[in-house]
Amino acid sequence: MIIKIEPQSNIPIYAQLTNQIMEGIIRGELKDGDMLPSVRSLAADLSINMHTVNKSYHELEEKGIIKIVPKSGAIICLQKSWQEKERYQQLVDQFRPVIVEALVLGMNKEDLYKLVNDISSVVEGE
Amino acid sequence: MIIKIEPQSNIPIYAQLTNQIMEGIIRGELKDGDMLPSVRSLAADLSINMHTVNKSYHELEEKGIIKIVPKSGAIICLQKSWQEKERYQQLVDQFRPVIVEALVLGMNKEDLYKLVNDISSVVEGE
Repeated sequence: MIIKIEPQSNIPIYAQLTNQIMEGIIRGELKDGDMLPSVRSLAADLSINMHTVNKSYHELEEKGIIKIVPKSGAIICLQKSWQEKERYQQLVDQFRPVIVEALVLGMNKEDLYKLVNDISSVVEGE
Repeated sequence: MIIKIEPQSNIPIYAQLTNQIMEGIIRGELKDGDMLPSVRSLAADLSINMHTVNKSYHELEEKGIIKIVPKSGAIICLQKSWQEKERYQQLVDQFRPVIVEALVLGMNKEDLYKLVNDISSVVEGE
Protein backbone atom coordinates (compact mmCIF):
# COMPACT_ATOMS: atom_id res chain seq x y z
CA MET A 1 0.00 0.00 0.00
CA ILE A 2 1.31 3.44 -0.95
CA ILE A 3 1.11 6.21 1.65
CA LYS A 4 1.43 9.75 0.36
CA ILE A 5 2.02 12.56 2.83
CA GLU A 6 1.25 16.13 1.80
CA PRO A 7 3.35 18.44 3.98
CA GLN A 8 1.52 21.54 2.65
CA SER A 9 -1.95 20.28 3.64
CA ASN A 10 -3.98 21.84 6.47
CA ILE A 11 -4.49 18.32 7.82
CA PRO A 12 -1.79 17.42 10.39
CA ILE A 13 0.64 14.77 9.14
CA TYR A 14 -0.25 12.23 11.88
CA ALA A 15 -3.93 12.57 10.89
CA GLN A 16 -3.09 12.07 7.19
CA LEU A 17 -1.30 8.86 8.15
CA THR A 18 -4.18 7.65 10.37
CA ASN A 19 -6.71 8.36 7.61
CA GLN A 20 -4.69 6.67 4.89
CA ILE A 21 -4.21 3.52 6.96
CA MET A 22 -7.98 3.42 7.63
CA GLU A 23 -8.69 3.99 3.92
CA GLY A 24 -6.27 1.16 3.05
CA ILE A 25 -8.34 -1.14 5.27
CA ILE A 26 -11.59 -0.06 3.59
CA ARG A 27 -10.17 -0.75 0.13
CA GLY A 28 -8.88 -4.14 1.30
CA GLU A 29 -5.21 -3.23 0.76
CA LEU A 30 -4.65 -3.82 4.47
CA LYS A 31 -6.33 -6.81 6.11
CA ASP A 32 -6.94 -8.02 9.64
CA GLY A 33 -3.68 -9.55 10.85
CA ASP A 34 -1.45 -7.57 8.45
CA MET A 35 1.68 -6.10 10.01
CA LEU A 36 2.43 -2.39 9.80
CA PRO A 37 6.10 -1.35 9.65
CA SER A 38 7.97 -0.29 12.76
CA VAL A 39 7.68 3.37 13.74
CA ARG A 40 11.33 3.90 12.85
CA SER A 41 11.17 2.40 9.37
CA LEU A 42 7.86 4.03 8.39
CA ALA A 43 9.16 7.42 9.58
CA ALA A 44 12.28 6.93 7.47
CA ASP A 45 10.29 5.79 4.39
CA LEU A 46 7.97 8.80 4.55
CA SER A 47 10.69 11.27 5.66
CA ILE A 48 8.63 12.29 8.68
CA ASN A 49 9.32 12.43 12.40
CA MET A 50 9.11 9.21 14.45
CA HIS A 51 6.87 11.02 16.97
CA THR A 52 4.39 11.66 14.17
CA VAL A 53 4.16 7.96 13.27
CA ASN A 54 3.95 7.10 16.95
CA LYS A 55 1.05 9.54 17.46
CA SER A 56 -0.83 8.03 14.52
CA TYR A 57 -0.27 4.43 15.71
CA HIS A 58 -1.51 5.33 19.20
CA GLU A 59 -4.58 7.03 17.73
CA LEU A 60 -5.35 3.92 15.66
CA GLU A 61 -4.86 1.73 18.73
CA GLU A 62 -7.26 3.91 20.74
CA LYS A 63 -9.82 3.58 17.97
CA GLY A 64 -9.55 -0.22 18.27
CA ILE A 65 -8.12 -0.64 14.76
CA ILE A 66 -4.52 -1.80 15.39
CA LYS A 67 -2.48 -3.31 18.19
CA ILE A 68 0.99 -1.92 18.77
CA VAL A 69 3.67 -4.58 19.11
CA PRO A 70 6.59 -3.02 21.02
CA LYS A 71 9.83 -2.86 19.05
CA SER A 72 8.43 -4.42 15.89
CA GLY A 73 5.50 -2.31 14.65
CA ALA A 74 1.78 -2.81 14.77
CA ILE A 75 -0.79 -5.31 13.60
CA ILE A 76 -4.16 -4.57 12.01
CA CYS A 77 -6.70 -5.91 14.47
CA LEU A 78 -10.29 -4.72 14.12
CA GLN A 79 -11.66 -5.08 17.62
CA LYS A 80 -14.82 -2.99 17.45
CA SER A 81 -18.03 -2.69 15.48
CA TRP A 82 -20.14 0.46 15.12
CA GLN A 83 -23.00 -1.52 16.60
CA GLU A 84 -21.40 -1.51 20.05
CA LYS A 85 -23.19 1.13 22.07
CA GLU A 86 -20.09 3.00 23.28
CA ARG A 87 -18.44 3.01 19.85
CA TYR A 88 -21.66 4.20 18.19
CA GLN A 89 -21.86 7.08 20.67
CA GLN A 90 -18.26 8.04 19.80
CA LEU A 91 -19.21 8.12 16.11
CA VAL A 92 -22.23 10.31 16.88
CA ASP A 93 -19.96 12.67 18.88
CA GLN A 94 -17.57 12.90 15.91
CA PHE A 95 -20.28 13.34 13.26
CA ARG A 96 -22.42 15.84 15.14
CA PRO A 97 -20.13 18.92 14.97
CA VAL A 98 -19.36 18.43 11.25
CA ILE A 99 -23.03 17.93 10.41
CA VAL A 100 -23.88 21.01 12.48
CA GLU A 101 -21.30 23.03 10.58
CA ALA A 102 -22.68 21.85 7.23
CA LEU A 103 -26.21 22.81 8.31
CA VAL A 104 -25.05 26.26 9.49
CA LEU A 105 -23.49 26.75 6.06
CA GLY A 106 -26.89 26.10 4.50
CA MET A 107 -26.79 22.42 3.55
CA ASN A 108 -30.03 20.47 3.75
CA LYS A 109 -30.40 16.72 4.29
CA GLU A 110 -30.25 15.92 0.58
CA ASP A 111 -27.00 17.89 0.23
CA LEU A 112 -25.62 15.98 3.23
CA TYR A 113 -26.56 12.60 1.73
CA LYS A 114 -24.86 13.58 -1.52
CA LEU A 115 -21.71 14.68 0.33
CA VAL A 116 -21.61 11.42 2.30
CA ASN A 117 -22.23 9.38 -0.85
CA ASP A 118 -19.53 11.20 -2.84
CA ILE A 119 -16.93 10.82 -0.08
CA SER A 120 -17.67 7.13 0.55
CA SER A 121 -17.46 6.40 -3.18
CA VAL A 122 -14.07 8.11 -3.42
CA VAL A 123 -12.80 6.28 -0.32
CA GLU A 124 -14.05 2.91 -1.52
CA GLY A 125 -12.44 3.56 -4.90
CA GLU A 126 -15.71 3.20 -6.82
CA MET B 1 -30.66 30.54 24.38
CA ILE B 2 -29.51 28.15 27.11
CA ILE B 3 -25.96 26.83 26.92
CA LYS B 4 -25.21 23.73 28.95
CA ILE B 5 -21.59 22.73 29.52
CA GLU B 6 -20.80 19.16 30.55
CA PRO B 7 -17.43 19.22 32.34
CA GLN B 8 -17.32 15.38 32.41
CA SER B 9 -17.72 14.99 28.64
CA ASN B 10 -14.89 13.77 26.38
CA ILE B 11 -15.60 16.77 24.16
CA PRO B 12 -13.42 19.77 25.13
CA ILE B 13 -15.39 22.62 26.71
CA TYR B 14 -14.51 25.15 23.97
CA ALA B 15 -15.80 22.68 21.37
CA GLN B 16 -19.04 22.15 23.32
CA LEU B 17 -19.54 25.92 23.31
CA THR B 18 -18.77 26.23 19.57
CA ASN B 19 -21.18 23.40 18.74
CA GLN B 20 -23.99 24.75 20.90
CA ILE B 21 -23.75 28.21 19.37
CA MET B 22 -23.89 26.64 15.88
CA GLU B 23 -26.86 24.50 16.93
CA GLY B 24 -28.60 27.61 18.29
CA ILE B 25 -28.24 29.17 14.84
CA ILE B 26 -29.68 26.09 13.13
CA ARG B 27 -32.70 26.08 15.44
CA GLY B 28 -33.20 29.81 14.85
CA GLU B 29 -32.57 30.74 18.49
CA LEU B 30 -29.64 32.84 17.31
CA LYS B 31 -30.03 34.94 14.18
CA ASP B 32 -27.75 36.87 11.84
CA GLY B 33 -26.93 40.15 13.59
CA ASP B 34 -27.59 38.85 17.12
CA MET B 35 -25.00 39.82 19.71
CA LEU B 36 -23.17 37.21 21.77
CA PRO B 37 -22.14 38.18 25.32
CA SER B 38 -18.64 39.42 26.07
CA VAL B 39 -16.02 36.77 26.76
CA ARG B 40 -15.87 37.84 30.40
CA SER B 41 -19.59 37.67 31.08
CA LEU B 42 -20.18 34.39 29.23
CA ALA B 43 -17.24 32.81 31.10
CA ALA B 44 -18.74 34.01 34.39
CA ASP B 45 -22.27 32.78 33.49
CA LEU B 46 -21.01 29.31 32.53
CA SER B 47 -18.36 29.13 35.30
CA ILE B 48 -15.65 28.41 32.76
CA ASN B 49 -12.31 30.00 31.94
CA MET B 50 -12.22 33.16 29.81
CA HIS B 51 -9.57 31.54 27.58
CA THR B 52 -12.05 28.77 26.79
CA VAL B 53 -14.72 31.22 25.61
CA ASN B 54 -12.07 33.12 23.69
CA LYS B 55 -10.92 29.95 21.92
CA SER B 56 -14.49 29.12 20.92
CA TYR B 57 -15.20 32.65 19.62
CA HIS B 58 -12.00 32.59 17.55
CA GLU B 59 -12.92 29.19 16.14
CA LEU B 60 -16.38 30.50 15.17
CA GLU B 61 -14.79 33.56 13.58
CA GLU B 62 -12.41 31.38 11.56
CA LYS B 63 -15.37 29.34 10.35
CA GLY B 64 -16.97 32.59 9.09
CA ILE B 65 -19.92 32.36 11.53
CA ILE B 66 -19.34 35.30 13.90
CA LYS B 67 -17.38 38.53 14.00
CA ILE B 68 -15.58 39.39 17.22
CA VAL B 69 -16.17 42.95 18.41
CA PRO B 70 -13.26 43.86 20.70
CA LYS B 71 -14.29 44.64 24.29
CA SER B 72 -17.99 44.03 23.74
CA GLY B 73 -18.49 40.47 22.51
CA ALA B 74 -19.27 39.03 19.12
CA ILE B 75 -21.97 39.27 16.51
CA ILE B 76 -23.54 36.42 14.54
CA CYS B 77 -22.57 37.09 10.94
CA LEU B 78 -22.88 34.24 8.46
CA GLN B 79 -20.35 35.08 5.80
CA LYS B 80 -19.98 31.79 3.96
CA SER B 81 -22.04 29.23 2.12
CA TRP B 82 -21.13 25.58 1.62
CA GLN B 83 -21.36 26.22 -2.11
CA GLU B 84 -18.14 28.27 -2.07
CA LYS B 85 -15.41 26.03 -3.41
CA GLU B 86 -12.92 26.56 -0.59
CA ARG B 87 -15.55 26.14 2.15
CA TYR B 88 -16.89 22.98 0.47
CA GLN B 89 -13.39 21.53 0.39
CA GLN B 90 -13.02 22.26 4.13
CA LEU B 91 -16.27 20.38 4.78
CA VAL B 92 -15.04 17.43 2.71
CA ASP B 93 -11.77 17.44 4.71
CA GLN B 94 -13.76 17.37 7.98
CA PHE B 95 -16.25 14.72 6.86
CA ARG B 96 -13.78 12.36 5.22
CA PRO B 97 -11.98 11.02 8.35
CA VAL B 98 -15.24 10.45 10.27
CA ILE B 99 -16.85 8.70 7.30
CA VAL B 100 -13.69 6.61 6.90
CA GLU B 101 -13.83 5.61 10.56
CA ALA B 102 -17.50 4.64 10.26
CA LEU B 103 -16.72 2.50 7.18
CA VAL B 104 -13.79 0.80 8.96
CA LEU B 105 -16.17 -0.05 11.80
CA GLY B 106 -18.40 -1.82 9.28
CA MET B 107 -21.05 0.78 8.41
CA ASN B 108 -22.42 0.77 4.88
CA LYS B 109 -23.92 3.73 3.02
CA GLU B 110 -27.45 3.08 4.29
CA ASP B 111 -26.18 3.03 7.89
CA LEU B 112 -24.36 6.32 7.22
CA TYR B 113 -27.50 7.95 5.77
CA LYS B 114 -29.45 6.87 8.84
CA LEU B 115 -26.78 8.25 11.18
CA VAL B 116 -26.73 11.58 9.31
CA ASN B 117 -30.53 11.73 9.28
CA ASP B 118 -30.82 10.93 12.99
CA ILE B 119 -28.24 13.53 13.99
CA SER B 120 -29.69 16.29 11.80
CA SER B 121 -33.17 15.61 13.14
CA VAL B 122 -31.92 15.90 16.72
CA VAL B 123 -30.01 19.09 15.94
CA GLU B 124 -32.93 20.67 14.13
CA GLY B 125 -35.17 19.73 17.04
CA GLU B 126 -37.58 17.68 14.91
